[in-house]
Amino acid sequence: MGFLSEDRLFPTEPTARLLARALYAQVKDAPIISPHGHTDPQWFAQNEPFEDAAKLFITPDHYVFRMLHSQGVALEDLGVPRADGGAVERDSRKIWRLFARHYRLFAATPSRMWIDHALQDLFGLDQRLSPETADAAFDAINEKLASPAFRPRALFERFKLEVLATTESALDDLAHHRGIRDSGWQGRVITTYRPDAVIDPDFDGFIGNVEAFCAHGGGAVTWESYLAAHHTCRAYFASLGATATDHGHPTANTANLSQAEAAALFDDVMSGKADPATRELFRAQMLTEMARMSVADGLVMQIHAGSQRNHSDWVLARFGRDKGYDIPQRTDYVTALRPLLQEFGRADGFHLILFTLDESSYARELAPLAGVYPCLFLGPPWWFHDSYEGMMRFRRSVTETAGFYNLAGFNDDTRAFCSIPARHDVARRVDAAYLAELIVTGRLDESEAGDLMQELTTGLARRAYKL
Amino acid sequence: MGFLSEDRLFPTEPTARLLARALYAQVKDAPIISPHGHTDPQWFAQNEPFEDAAKLFITPDHYVFRMLHSQGVALEDLGVPRADGGAVERDSRKIWRLFARHYRLFAATPSRMWIDHALQDLFGLDQRLSPETADAAFDAINEKLASPAFRPRALFERFKLEVLATTESALDDLAHHRGIRDSGWQGRVITTYRPDAVIDPDFDGFIGNVEAFCAHGGGAVTWESYLAAHHTCRAYFASLGATATDHGHPTANTANLSQAEAAALFDDVMSGKADPATRELFRAQMLTEMARMSVADGLVMQIHAGSQRNHSDWVLARFGRDKGYDIPQRTDYVTALRPLLQEFGRADGFHLILFTLDESSYARELAPLAGVYPCLFLGPPWWFHDSYEGMMRFRRSVTETAGFYNLAGFNDDTRAFCSIPARHDVARRVDAAYLAELIVTGRLDESEAGDLMQELTTGLARRAYKL
Amino acid sequence: MGFLSEDRLFPTEPTARLLARALYAQVKDAPIISPHGHTDPQWFAQNEPFEDAAKLFITPDHYVFRMLHSQGVALEDLGVPRADGGAVERDSRKIWRLFARHYRLFAATPSRMWIDHALQDLFGLDQRLSPETADAAFDAINEKLASPAFRPRALFERFKLEVLATTESALDDLAHHRGIRDSGWQGRVITTYRPDAVIDPDFDGFIGNVEAFCAHGGGAVTWESYLAAHHTCRAYFASLGATATDHGHPTANTANLSQAEAAALFDDVMSGKADPATRELFRAQMLTEMARMSVADGLVMQIHAGSQRNHSDWVLARFGRDKGYDIPQRTDYVTALRPLLQEFGRADGFHLILFTLDESSYARELAPLAGVYPCLFLGPPWWFHDSYEGMMRFRRSVTETAGFYNLAGFNDDTRAFCSIPARHDVARRVDAAYLAELIVTGRLDESEAGDLMQELTTGLARRAYKL
Repeated sequence: MGFLSEDRLFPTEPTARLLARALYAQVKDAPIISPHGHTDPQWFAQNEPFEDAAKLFITPDHYVFRMLHSQGVALEDLGVPRADGGAVERDSRKIWRLFARHYRLFAATPSRMWIDHALQDLFGLDQRLSPETADAAFDAINEKLASPAFRPRALFERFKLEVLATTESALDDLAHHRGIRDSGWQGRVITTYRPDAVIDPDFDGFIGNVEAFCAHGGGAVTWESYLAAHHTCRAYFASLGATATDHGHPTANTANLSQAEAAALFDDVMSGKADPATRELFRAQMLTEMARMSVADGLVMQIHAGSQRNHSDWVLARFGRDKGYDIPQRTDYVTALRPLLQEFGRADGFHLILFTLDESSYARELAPLAGVYPCLFLGPPWWFHDSYEGMMRFRRSVTETAGFYNLAGFNDDTRAFCSIPARHDVARRVDAAYLAELIVTGRLDESEAGDLMQELTTGLARRAYKL
Repeated sequence: MGFLSEDRLFPTEPTARLLARALYAQVKDAPIISPHGHTDPQWFAQNEPFEDAAKLFITPDHYVFRMLHSQGVALEDLGVPRADGGAVERDSRKIWRLFARHYRLFAATPSRMWIDHALQDLFGLDQRLSPETADAAFDAINEKLASPAFRPRALFERFKLEVLATTESALDDLAHHRGIRDSGWQGRVITTYRPDAVIDPDFDGFIGNVEAFCAHGGGAVTWESYLAAHHTCRAYFASLGATATDHGHPTANTANLSQAEAAALFDDVMSGKADPATRELFRAQMLTEMARMSVADGLVMQIHAGSQRNHSDWVLARFGRDKGYDIPQRTDYVTALRPLLQEFGRADGFHLILFTLDESSYARELAPLAGVYPCLFLGPPWWFHDSYEGMMRFRRSVTETAGFYNLAGFNDDTRAFCSIPARHDVARRVDAAYLAELIVTGRLDESEAGDLMQELTTGLARRAYKL
Repeated sequence: MGFLSEDRLFPTEPTARLLARALYAQVKDAPIISPHGHTDPQWFAQNEPFEDAAKLFITPDHYVFRMLHSQGVALEDLGVPRADGGAVERDSRKIWRLFARHYRLFAATPSRMWIDHALQDLFGLDQRLSPETADAAFDAINEKLASPAFRPRALFERFKLEVLATTESALDDLAHHRGIRDSGWQGRVITTYRPDAVIDPDFDGFIGNVEAFCAHGGGAVTWESYLAAHHTCRAYFASLGATATDHGHPTANTANLSQAEAAALFDDVMSGKADPATRELFRAQMLTEMARMSVADGLVMQIHAGSQRNHSDWVLARFGRDKGYDIPQRTDYVTALRPLLQEFGRADGFHLILFTLDESSYARELAPLAGVYPCLFLGPPWWFHDSYEGMMRFRRSVTETAGFYNLAGFNDDTRAFCSIPARHDVARRVDAAYLAELIVTGRLDESEAGDLMQELTTGLARRAYKL
């Protein structure tokens, strides 16, 4: 008996609850397909033990430290590393106690459900974290982490991961992925081609990045060798398992210039003097170039659009990127994607998976687009919306127009390895709850729900990501 | 016993379900008011039998073929006619089988509920469509369609249509409406004045359209005779039953120029050289002109704003308009409508019915506007939002601010004649469910709900549309 | 036994209903914290009886008269005063009857629940208002109003108001607040510093306002004495209890110019010739100046952004401001607030409470911002959204990302004194319902819910507003 309810996230009306329970039971132990996320391939290449509870649950997880920070806890006191190497708290037990003292802040958040799940199911704790249980939990977790059964590869297998995709920069040499391949271990950890550092003129060090990158395309810093470098690197990523690319852009804008115009645009951004509109146009053009390459090489294309990154300059300067200061913004898709879709929307075998942080686009733009363009799939609720309410809003907003089969299944999209089973469990529960709701309101037959439950759990992701 | 649940779309909690069932029973067999839609008046003028199941359910219904197309089925294989007359599939049985093979794509969509309803209640089938039942269903439907009881006028009467409004271009001669009137048949089929082809400078053939249209206003191609042509044609439409006009614009922008400025603007767009902003300004000014005429002649004005039409040039060129490639876009009302409302917002007897595809405007703009301006009514959830979830979101978002009496009741807005009873049935069920929800949460008395159920079913539409 | 359901707004599923009932029972009789609203301090300074039912419930309440107006009732017939002093209906009984005749318009609106609650619980009526009960209700209410127990201070105590904040213009001399203080009465009625009249260049009489205002800062009409006047007046407001300022801007735009640029901008807007963008920039800069002063003097800062005021010029000219013609508009926060937050987002002790009328920003912008910036709190659902559905949408949209502790509790924000208990009662019921929903879906433990219920009722408001 755990401290989490066995029936959590299921509907409360008894008939619907029974249906949800039965549907969930069918997939509870299904393998996990994790086609998009940010875990570290080094874990699986080296298979070293995780260090301790604080380094596992707090320091790397911006969901966790942003909430504590919002209530006045200094990031330094949580051990978040400074960009300049300045001193931060290094005593993991102290960090863990600080976290436990503020754990009430997470009431009703998805972070709490993920952490509770991991503490209960993975680490076998029988009480929720609190100031009173903090030390015992810390010791129990650390003891397990030191054991062979909690090394990364063992956990990978325990989690029933059928496939786990990580995400690497186009500039990465994929040494860890080669390490995994060469180790003979059979876990399927694949990479994903993420070229933001050489596509986004606002990325830190963009010009130097592109100069280095062009080496893969012949060496000259020209549009032609730049494109050739993408070709080369995509093929290299694919050789290490990648089935997909990923693009994290502030907007979903696309453009479709002639190659001569694009070459001039490339020279312009490489001069370092391009204005914001020109830099945006380059990002837009490059999405279309990436689509063109996907049509050719079959890599599935993902667009994660709509985050205004690093909202606080002070935090960026002091702690670097990905510190909880990325805030969603209103995002247009219908006009933005048109140039790309005009050109490749009906291309054979092309898969383009769209993600949004602007829920107002679900029913208005994304479901209508995915419900007609053959290439389009909708990714699951992303980031802040990867939660019970967020998932329910997504299902209720998109299914009626896009159906189930234009969806890409679930992504956990996490840096926090131990949250993977918890996140997939939440998704499976919510999907069971949603299907039960459809059945009891006469919108789906019970006989159909089992197949859809399988599709939502594994089938849709496998097909959308060509796994 | 049908394959559809008798209690579909009702709340699951037993008390609420009983209330919903009782409210629905009161209106289940009420006559249908259909004040806005796109059925073909020729059906009722000529009363010829419908051809076959594929031509009834698939070929003309963009909800249906867009979903199949999104999963890679070619529109040609569904018999969608090519704009250039090129070859498409003509074997209706083959088309029907293809549809049946993909029918699972429609799980949990409104299209499935409408089709299921028609197959069960109208055609008497006892199983949902599937590859296994495809041929039997095809034959059974075709057999019925050949019988006198399934001719258009007989169906009109069987559907208990009290009034059915079609929508015709301002350039239409209304021959079929005259045919209906002259036939002596008593079914009330009325037209609606839709002048987009002569108001929207981006409409195919706009300049030629306006030149032809001006013949009704004296013949000169001037602002004065153009306005006179509108007067003449509105009166002609009204003589064939029209109580309303309809305007399908990309935005809800309105303008209120002087007549001298408007006349110059007219000359500008008729030169064929006006830029996009000028073309938009002409549309905006014409909404205000249409309002002015409505104040004078009493025709109810409808604005259907916010669709980005023909998103794919390739599909437009190959198959023409209305092929499922119209995608909603973010739409402003509060600033856009201000010029028109400043001038006519309080005009005696003026009715302006607003529709949106941008649900974020329901609670933010539309309900607050309709809750204060005497002329305004809110149309029902439109197009992609005409569904269980879409209707519930609408009711929950607008009622608290606009109340019930600033709403225009239900529209089916369909090209698919046989879906009319199904669509009204869905609306009645959802309204019963919503009222039941209000009762069980103490927001409405049971004694009040019966009257509101009648209003939502027929009263509001009759009053808003002056029927 | 009243005519309102004892269980109104609670979930319908029996387990959840019992939980909600128990949570509500814990706070039903808790004191009321009213940290933001628009009641008239003169009531408490002079403690004269309220005049009659119509003057209490109808004439001053734009929620009420806007709905009647939307259905064609003239504002004059409701006794709404004309700006030019022209004749309006003065017979309160006639106004009350007109209201009663249209009371059905309010079905399922929050206004009805507030009025029903006041009529039942405060005035002891046993039937809902209707044409039949209008006269008896009018007489009964008026009789009570004439009694000592219904004078403003007696009602204040009966309502268990622990603190009531009113809102005064920066130009107000706070005579009534001094009157309250000097009267020796112990009721805590505090003011709030609202400087829109001297900050918004589009405010009626702005230039004259600023000229008069500068007297408090030394007299010269310069940027320096203007800022000094703000300092002086903020301190004066604080001396009469103010713990907060409030800013009603059309957008949430902020700017962070140098003081030299700001001084030039001040001169520009004071010239009366500034264009709209410059006037907006002045408002934007002043939000940052107000934040700077809040960091120094500790006053909590509130921003109420996103209303397009006085949508009808005719109504503004005839009846003045606040006549129901303020309509929400789409509002950006993520870009708009960045200049202010860059500068003061992490300042010690700074509290900035954000309100919105654009619900699409809840999950997309506001919860992510409040979930990371230490200074930020989210105000409760505002204005049109202060309703059962509005509150539920808010809770479900923001809690998962912002948690509970970055919220500012409930505001009634009302001009209608007698609606205060009703509005807080609605909020407590909805919060109980929401917490019950979290418990039955396994997202919160029953043992945690009691504390959160107290926080939502009083704790969060006390802390956010430094009461």
